[in-house]
Amino acid sequence: MFIGAQVSLYPMTSDFVNVITSGLAALTPYKDNLRIETDDMSTLMVGAPEPLFDAVRDLFAASARLPDHVTMHVTFSRGCPGEPDDPTCRCETLTQAQDQSLEERKGLSLEAVRAAPVLGVEIDIQFSLYVLGQDRHMDEIYGCIDFLKTSGTFLKSKNFCTRLRGDAGAVFETVRQAFLRFGPAAGHVTIDLTASANSPSRR
Amino acid sequence: MFIGAQVSLYPMTSDFVNVITSGLAALTPYKDNLRIETDDMSTLMVGAPEPLFDAVRDLFAASARLPDHVTMHVTFSRGCPGEPDDPTCRCETLTQAQDQSLEERKGLSLEAVRAAPVLGVEIDIQFSLYVLGQDRHMDEIYGCIDFLKTSGTFLKSKNFCTRLRGDAGAVFETVRQAFLRFGPAAGHVTIDLTASANSPSRR
Repeated sequence: MFIGAQVSLYPMTSDFVNVITSGLAALTPYKDNLRIETDDMSTLMVGAPEPLFDAVRDLFAASARLPDHVTMHVTFSRGCPGEPDDPTCRCETLTQAQDQSLEERKGLSLEAVRAAPVLGVEIDIQFSLYVLGQDRHMDEIYGCIDFLKTSGTFLKSKNFCTRLRGDAGAVFETVRQAFLRFGPAAGHVTIDLTASANSPSRR
Repeated sequence: MFIGAQVSLYPMTSDFVNVITSGLAALTPYKDNLRIETDDMSTLMVGAPEPLFDAVRDLFAASARLPDHVTMHVTFSRGCPGEPDDPTCRCETLTQAQDQSLEERKGLSLEAVRAAPVLGVEIDIQFSLYVLGQDRHMDEIYGCIDFLKTSGTFLKSKNFCTRLRGDAGAVFETVRQAFLRFGPAAGHVTIDLTASANSPSRR
């Protein structure tokens, strides 16, 4: 299994380079557990979902604590057939999910969101979960939407995506659960996510 | 068939509201042919792929002509099983694709990119094409990657996505061809795309 993300941070300020540099500092604690490579469009992070989602969450939360409007785009991927197996990406949650029903996985997802840390930063996200290479992909999507609606972070359904709002801790835990517990455990699953904080449209 | 996009424009300047407003003005010629609805996170555009990709291209090109670093995120979707059929989304290219081999579709895609208008604005994009609900989804993806590599806009392959660079006309035509000619014509296909212009990393 190969698990990772392409992450881009977009601060809506002329001082954007400084905000990005401060955000990237939040990744320091994760550098031993993730492979992190930055080019001029995005930062690749490869590793297990525990440090991966924590790192993405902390990157965005650090930037959202500053006063400026900031957004982020993330492409998460697991199990892409074109990528090599990577032992650093091994994940107990995925291994267990192979023997769990959709109902069990919904329940475990809710427990995980309830146990998420409170970061004290309110954020908005919208995201799409894609289950690839499976004929009955919409069953897993509808199961995931059921979970999202009861997660406590659900804001609304939109065309092509779902909108969440809440503390960065609960919101990113909700996305991690969607990524890990829906779609076949050994299959190819991706997420297309945008996050937003301090938007003037909400003031 | 239901076809559309969620589009977000991110100008990296404290004057971001003005850049977004100027960009949105570029959508005016498309308002008769697309349903356009904006909320605080993104703009929904629904309609046929001809005005849809032209509108997204012109929105970004208008913003990229200004001096500031600007990025854009787009989620394109066609044939999502959860969406209603919409006659305004009807597309001749998709209808024809049902009877065309992968080789034929690659050739037609290259012709379309060669015929794309030159907008005089150089942009970078990276994107992922997702073919949903099909067991052999990677055959179509690999066919699409063959096309991309010979499109004249290909820059490099990255983990989880492909990077293009060139004039906005050719680049967005390349993406439209990827979206329309790969994956089953009546199936569920999505694209997760980020665009960038005037990045200080490239100066």
